[in-house]
Amino acid sequence: MKYPKIPLAQTLIQLCKAKGVKHIVLSPGSRNAPLTIGFTHDPFFNCYSIVDERCAAFFALGIAQQLQEPTAVVCTSGSALLNYYPAVAEAFYSNIPLIVLSADRPKHLVGIGDGQTINQKNVFKNHILYSANLKLDLKDEKNVPNDEELPIFKNLEDKFERLLGLQKGIQTFNEEEINDAINTAKIKKGPVHINIPFDEPLYDIVEHLTVTPKVIDIPVKEVEIETHVLKSCFEDWNSATRKMILVGVNEPNSIEQKWLEEIAEDDSVIVLTESTSNLHHPSFFQSIDQLIAPLTEDEQRQLQPEILVTFGGLIVSKKIKQLLRKHKPKQHWHIDEQEANDTFFCLNNHIKATPNAFFEAFLPLVTHYVKSNYKNTWAAVKKTRLEKHKTYLADIPFSDFTVFNKVLKSVPENYILQVGNSSAIRYTQLFNINKTLEVFCNRGTSGIDGSTSTAIGAAVAQNKPTLFITGDLSFLYDSNALWNNYIPKNFRIIVVNNQGGGIFRILPGHKNTENFDTYFETNHNLTAEHLCKMYGLDYQVASDKLTLKEALSGFYEAGEKPKVIEVFTPKGLNDDVLLNYFKSLK
Amino acid sequence: MKYPKIPLAQTLIQLCKAKGVKHIVLSPGSRNAPLTIGFTHDPFFNCYSIVDERCAAFFALGIAQQLQEPTAVVCTSGSALLNYYPAVAEAFYSNIPLIVLSADRPKHLVGIGDGQTINQKNVFKNHILYSANLKLDLKDEKNVPNDEELPIFKNLEDKFERLLGLQKGIQTFNEEEINDAINTAKIKKGPVHINIPFDEPLYDIVEHLTVTPKVIDIPVKEVEIETHVLKSCFEDWNSATRKMILVGVNEPNSIEQKWLEEIAEDDSVIVLTESTSNLHHPSFFQSIDQLIAPLTEDEQRQLQPEILVTFGGLIVSKKIKQLLRKHKPKQHWHIDEQEANDTFFCLNNHIKATPNAFFEAFLPLVTHYVKSNYKNTWAAVKKTRLEKHKTYLADIPFSDFTVFNKVLKSVPENYILQVGNSSAIRYTQLFNINKTLEVFCNRGTSGIDGSTSTAIGAAVAQNKPTLFITGDLSFLYDSNALWNNYIPKNFRIIVVNNQGGGIFRILPGHKNTENFDTYFETNHNLTAEHLCKMYGLDYQVASDKLTLKEALSGFYEAGEKPKVIEVFTPKGLNDDVLLNYFKSLK
Repeated sequence: MKYPKIPLAQTLIQLCKAKGVKHIVLSPGSRNAPLTIGFTHDPFFNCYSIVDERCAAFFALGIAQQLQEPTAVVCTSGSALLNYYPAVAEAFYSNIPLIVLSADRPKHLVGIGDGQTINQKNVFKNHILYSANLKLDLKDEKNVPNDEELPIFKNLEDKFERLLGLQKGIQTFNEEEINDAINTAKIKKGPVHINIPFDEPLYDIVEHLTVTPKVIDIPVKEVEIETHVLKSCFEDWNSATRKMILVGVNEPNSIEQKWLEEIAEDDSVIVLTESTSNLHHPSFFQSIDQLIAPLTEDEQRQLQPEILVTFGGLIVSKKIKQLLRKHKPKQHWHIDEQEANDTFFCLNNHIKATPNAFFEAFLPLVTHYVKSNYKNTWAAVKKTRLEKHKTYLADIPFSDFTVFNKVLKSVPENYILQVGNSSAIRYTQLFNINKTLEVFCNRGTSGIDGSTSTAIGAAVAQNKPTLFITGDLSFLYDSNALWNNYIPKNFRIIVVNNQGGGIFRILPGHKNTENFDTYFETNHNLTAEHLCKMYGLDYQVASDKLTLKEALSGFYEAGEKPKVIEVFTPKGLNDDVLLNYFKSLK
Repeated sequence: MKYPKIPLAQTLIQLCKAKGVKHIVLSPGSRNAPLTIGFTHDPFFNCYSIVDERCAAFFALGIAQQLQEPTAVVCTSGSALLNYYPAVAEAFYSNIPLIVLSADRPKHLVGIGDGQTINQKNVFKNHILYSANLKLDLKDEKNVPNDEELPIFKNLEDKFERLLGLQKGIQTFNEEEINDAINTAKIKKGPVHINIPFDEPLYDIVEHLTVTPKVIDIPVKEVEIETHVLKSCFEDWNSATRKMILVGVNEPNSIEQKWLEEIAEDDSVIVLTESTSNLHHPSFFQSIDQLIAPLTEDEQRQLQPEILVTFGGLIVSKKIKQLLRKHKPKQHWHIDEQEANDTFFCLNNHIKATPNAFFEAFLPLVTHYVKSNYKNTWAAVKKTRLEKHKTYLADIPFSDFTVFNKVLKSVPENYILQVGNSSAIRYTQLFNINKTLEVFCNRGTSGIDGSTSTAIGAAVAQNKPTLFITGDLSFLYDSNALWNNYIPKNFRIIVVNNQGGGIFRILPGHKNTENFDTYFETNHNLTAEHLCKMYGLDYQVASDKLTLKEALSGFYEAGEKPKVIEVFTPKGLNDDVLLNYFKSLK
């Protein structure tokens, strides 16, 4: 087999392999040649080549999002690394294990005006779980004079002895740092950065490994929930007649169905879910905004829970955040092994466990349900809402709202549904989604910068048919996502093109002025057509009910290329349809 | 006039105006609405709307590169800001005054799981001259409880008194920070970051300003060069028979011609320039690599100067860096007001002055020239090189090398020539450039990530005809650069498309394997055609001598659209032609 000659590159690659880092997204470069050579010659790794590092990192994020396994991106020195930052931040806030491997120049060539060189050390400091700054192998005298650690030697023999010792020390340091970084990504679920200095020559190859790094694994112990915590929870729970469970971004099939069934039995509990919660039960409340948007102040107070239990990642619905901040529950428990956000400024209990572990320990304690009409009251409201929703839909013109309705209904079972930010996910939330779909959206930072790349990465990782729904700005922003040789044939995109940032029409801005059009909505006449031609995607257009129906018929059938439907909607109408929708629910 | 209601937004905008920050590049968002409203309603500012923040920042960089005046980019909260980072790093290493204005959520909404929120404080720490983290206006009680500064009050009156005092303190703090940040960008020439928290409501407008911030200017004193420094320089200079002046990236017309003439008289001095030096004299050595590539070890030692004087930014030529690191001059003086890179590991004198100021103080002291054949010897070498260059050109097939020869000859006088990284600028260096051209390239980080955007920004700022020459990877990487409503009609692009990263064929990799094609050269069959159609640019193709000639005829004439020529070159041939070129010079 072929290996890079540089021992540090061998060390890194072996440790990635030992720790099951299987998917490696490489961007071209010279400084990272030792890593590229190493990863691509070992059939253990699935390697991908993507030029634009911004897309490369989001693509890797999509893989890691699906597999929940550390996925690596590899880049050369210089500004390449900085293009990873949007995806690194998304990984940080979405708890996705992303491993950034950046090649760097040796320390003595940093900060002295050498080309393609920046200060890479700790560069993601604000949004990273671990930064390992590796040290250069001391392959010969050449590297030594600029390394602080080295005193002056009496004779040559001394020098080599000392060099050998130093190199051992460096090797040990590097091994430990790499182990720590990858372990952190795995256990704490998030991004880590390993910065790796290489000196020339970079392209040398050897037939046999020359180093055997030590693999340090950290056994993960599941921490038991303390009895007094459970007891205290139980007492409060049993005396409260209004309990709300609110679920954020949550991996499909991660919560055992039996706990959901049990919770659904309890009349004092309502469960609010979002599309991204990937949790389904007939008695749960799927569309939060539909439920609460029309509420009066009094009604909001009636919905206010005594105990709020949350789990999962970030919440999409602004309205529920506003409501719960205004009408704070007496208690807010968050269930998560790692961390708890005080999103509603009343967090009083961080239960350090997985939701399953908590339910397993807690629910059996709940032997009888508190008498309450909390759930039934709101179930009745929900029923009316759904009727009004239906009535409203029957009566409105072709627009973003009707497009999302039709498109979401069209998706075949068992699809992965990737949704862009931010209108797209907000519209999606308003509809009941087929429970066999798995729904994902980059809600860590809610950026429009990498949704397409993430969706493609996810589709590649799962090898399952995937539909990506996005707005036009988000799609155009990440247009380089399509510069990708791995897009599966069963990948589908629907671009809802309302010729600008339609969301700004919903916000309290000053509409219908040139200033608004230019600087807020950022109107444009661009389409996805040329990009589809350029990158070899099948392209169809829809602009009304009939053409959308036609475009959707056959859309999900197998084809020779990934397929795109671009749906043009009337920008001047979309906001009225949405705002009137909320009014109509009253 | 219309102003944002929020006092902090008024403060910031007024200070930008007072300090002459005229060009404002805005990306759409809601959190930054107060700034967008303020900047776009004041006719003092030239505002631009660009959606992709990576492109927006490079576009602003291009403006600032030309005007050498602070130019601002404005974005919303969240990952938007991170997309500025590649341009921020380029500005940092190229000494370009870029002002990053990021809107942020109030502190109590950061880190608690709110949407579109990251940790923006000091996020560019490794590559920024100043980070101002402003404080939220205390507009009412609402903001107070989460602000650390506030103790508990006895009564309501106390509270309002205290609030008023606090607000004054906050106002003063913010004013000073903004002044410091903008002053730093202006004086030290580089990027600064001002992070600005805003609370809702964000869209309120008032007819009159409610705050009058204090403008603090720092008078810039030119520091005189100390007499003993001059004296010591003079003594060394007068006793050295081999002196080399090496010029990095340098603004056109920044060095007075009379000093250049005087230096050119001295037989003991040779001046090496690069395309990006923007310095011309018949006796200077324009093409460094052409001169030194064929040198034997002995000849290199003959070229080794006793004193090396450098000024300007980073050096493109790797070969001269290698030579001077190997054959270190006894002395290396760097002339720059701010800083000096120890690029050759022998810097012994940082002369803190502008080159003009130094020459004005120093050159009159040099009343006679040291006898030396240093310049004449190398002038003879240069002459042979130029002959061989001509001979070689006459004899080679159509390739990158011949394309750069023809294209560079075709550029009309007084054009701005923007060049991409990194093959493009390296080829450009091999040819003598018309001295009326002004040449620019992002050599701070030498990235391929924003060359097109930078070139467009530069063209917009100068309103002068501009040609941008780029390779295909760089062009495709920054394809969103064309999503820009401000591209002047007289903007021209030449894409030299060798179907991948041609530079990797020159480097010592392992060519002609599938692995090389995929992960190093990253082969593709993409063209600029669809992008040109999409964004409304005139597009022509060339693929041999004749079609290139045809395409170039009329290319620089006025037209209704910006124009692009895409030149396809044979990727399998380009590297041989280049490597043989260096051999042929011997």
